Amino acid sequence: MKELEERIVQQGTVKPGNVLKVDAFLNHQCDVELFDHMGAAWAEHFKGKTIDKILTIEASGIGIACVVARHFGNVPVVFAKKAQSINLDGDQYTTTVYSFTKQKEFPVIVSKRYLNEGDHVLLIDDFLANGKALKGLIELCHEAGATVEGIGIAVEKGFQGGGDQLREEGYDVDSLAIVESMDPENGTIEFRS
Amino acid sequence: MKELEERIVQQGTVKPGNVLKVDAFLNHQCDVELFDHMGAAWAEHFKGKTIDKILTIEASGIGIACVVARHFGNVPVVFAKKAQSINLDGDQYTTTVYSFTKQKEFPVIVSKRYLNEGDHVLLIDDFLANGKALKGLIELCHEAGATVEGIGIAVEKGFQGGGDQLREEGYDVDSLAIVESMDPENGTIEFRS
Repeated sequence: MKELEERIVQQGTVKPGNVLKVDAFLNHQCDVELFDHMGAAWAEHFKGKTIDKILTIEASGIGIACVVARHFGNVPVVFAKKAQSINLDGDQYTTTVYSFTKQKEFPVIVSKRYLNEGDHVLLIDDFLANGKALKGLIELCHEAGATVEGIGIAVEKGFQGGGDQLREEGYDVDSLAIVESMDPENGTIEFRS
Repeated sequence: MKELEERIVQQGTVKPGNVLKVDAFLNHQCDVELFDHMGAAWAEHFKGKTIDKILTIEASGIGIACVVARHFGNVPVVFAKKAQSINLDGDQYTTTVYSFTKQKEFPVIVSKRYLNEGDHVLLIDDFLANGKALKGLIELCHEAGATVEGIGIAVEKGFQGGGDQLREEGYDVDSLAIVESMDPENGTIEFRS
């Protein structure tokens, strides 16, 4: 998606340690008009598929998923939670994900009431690097007996391999920008064409 | 807002300890069409005010804020983060908020790049009880020199007093449903009229 690539070039920052900061428009400050265009792109890519639920993970995926849901007939958006809260009762699907950003493992939880057998799910997230978070979401879907119809990602760090691994496993992964390489020294970013 | 009150009655659950669970449509599973109607209600309430940014706090506020922003000319949405992440550099406004739900204190952070002197800010959140989280957001706005033009809340627990305290301090708080009392024994919920 040209618009997203341009925004990454204009406003993204490459930091040491394979960190790409896009918090000006994607995951701290949110450009909801861009999110809307991303929704249109995914609606086009996944057209013909039955999608009756969007599943994402807190926090950065939520805003994107909620804006994007309009392009899929206002289907319910469910966001997996990253830690046990006293407001969640015991009846939940749960798995564990390691976050490189936060440098720790955390539980990922979805209430059994909101993920069901027979659901046709589109997974949405802001970033895909090694794919740990997504694999957690896929695991929750399998536990529930739900079908993962597709995966919509804003920014994939292609060189970290998680996206290609999921494609090899047969998932329809549509990343709107795939960073093939980036250089913290001079700030350059190259996209997969 | 009649629609929101009806949803709370139909799908909300009252739990001991002043807990009102509305995770079927507000803060775990998200009804984005309801969020859109909430945005229309706030656009009506706050019309005539200059609002050029929406500030919320992760995680449950983000989806609401991003859908609602459409009704305010697609202004940027900024969400305050609840914990230090290595992806945030040092240049940030920060305060501390106590969460009764999570039963602990946590830092609340906004990058200085995304909250500026002269910003006219609408604060959005899913819940208002004692008002601790909102007061944290207000503090961040004051630190930045931004003006809080209004506060849009989905569900206010009126009996916990945070909303009325903010109104007494002069803030324009528009809560779309104000729960005046609720009873975990029989599940009844009464709204402020």
